[in-house]
Amino acid sequence: MLSTTARTTLNRSKARGRTDRSELYAVLDAGLICHLGVVVDGSPRVIPTGYGRIGDTLYLHGSTGAASLRTAAEPGEVCVTVTHVDGLVLARSVFHHSVNYRSAMIFGAARAVEDEDERLAALRAITEQLAPGQWDAVRGPSRKDLAATAVLAVALAEASVKTRQGPPGDEEEDYALPVWAGVLPLRTTWGEPVPDPALRAGIPVPPHISDRPDPGGAG
Amino acid sequence: MLSTTARTTLNRSKARGRTDRSELYAVLDAGLICHLGVVVDGSPRVIPTGYGRIGDTLYLHGSTGAASLRTAAEPGEVCVTVTHVDGLVLARSVFHHSVNYRSAMIFGAARAVEDEDERLAALRAITEQLAPGQWDAVRGPSRKDLAATAVLAVALAEASVKTRQGPPGDEEEDYALPVWAGVLPLRTTWGEPVPDPALRAGIPVPPHISDRPDPGGAG
Repeated sequence: MLSTTARTTLNRSKARGRTDRSELYAVLDAGLICHLGVVVDGSPRVIPTGYGRIGDTLYLHGSTGAASLRTAAEPGEVCVTVTHVDGLVLARSVFHHSVNYRSAMIFGAARAVEDEDERLAALRAITEQLAPGQWDAVRGPSRKDLAATAVLAVALAEASVKTRQGPPGDEEEDYALPVWAGVLPLRTTWGEPVPDPALRAGIPVPPHISDRPDPGGAG
Repeated sequence: MLSTTARTTLNRSKARGRTDRSELYAVLDAGLICHLGVVVDGSPRVIPTGYGRIGDTLYLHGSTGAASLRTAAEPGEVCVTVTHVDGLVLARSVFHHSVNYRSAMIFGAARAVEDEDERLAALRAITEQLAPGQWDAVRGPSRKDLAATAVLAVALAEASVKTRQGPPGDEEEDYALPVWAGVLPLRTTWGEPVPDPALRAGIPVPPHISDRPDPGGAG
């Protein structure tokens, strides 16, 4: 069986020391989206959204009208989780099936970012996390764009990184079974850029898009 | 800028009607892991984990010792989110950058599954969601395995599906900018199976593993 069972036996590192912190950065920096957890009227909500990191601060953004972001900006904790699935662990028993993965979980109170310089830096980090090179290549945010955008900051103070890599760990007696066991790797790659049908003629795909390295590289 | 802003303008379908329900099933059935949200001492926790679906019930499992699962099994809501990232939406302004994605969010009280038949069916569904064909190919759960495994059920009663597909939607005046715009598709594919170093000689990779269709196919 799967993940939660397996995870309890895996590397678990509180992000305290220097090494753990670089592991935390690596998992965050390799991601495209996070899953943001907030509590709304006592119930959890888990929302996929973009993020960016500057030093030891994680930034999120959203519409100023979005209920989930308003909730997150009130005093109270949020949880931000970034997960990379690297492969399936196919064991000799269903119980030891698992996932090879890297995951970072950040807890903390979300702070609404009001300072304009910090807001711009955060929005740049969020954009560059998803689409490196685009901030300087396209039109920057207008006053109207900025007015419509809420920015939140979460300190990377409380964080944990969990990873599992490698072959299955089966029960001793199961190794004799005539059953294939191993790992089925999962790869994520960029496809060919698809131009907007409304694209003006004669505008080539810039290299930062066409030559972008594939995402989620195993850390 | 990114997702939350964009999502508010996207297709949002409450999973009520027949059509919406098949859309919900499609997003769930194409996934490998979910992000489970629970509330622990008033704070959200977002945990990546496996899941399975039987009809209108979503099943989760974990170690009987895992705090997050114990919390989820107490009265109180959980939120389960499954997200597929299909590509990046590269617009002519940073504000309209977005993600093409499919996401399902399930809310509800988690029920601890105690009936042995339902537990076995749930564990089979969870295993087959991650690794189709493995339940019948490997050793099934022992009494000891079952004793170590908690199973939770969440009804697919309250659910929402959000998707975004297609090219960027830019501000009218930005279409004149000399800026490339379009979509950078993201593909997930299975790599070559990697045998366990401890694999006995002469056991080939079974076809349900070697010929498995790539995951996350766009719904």
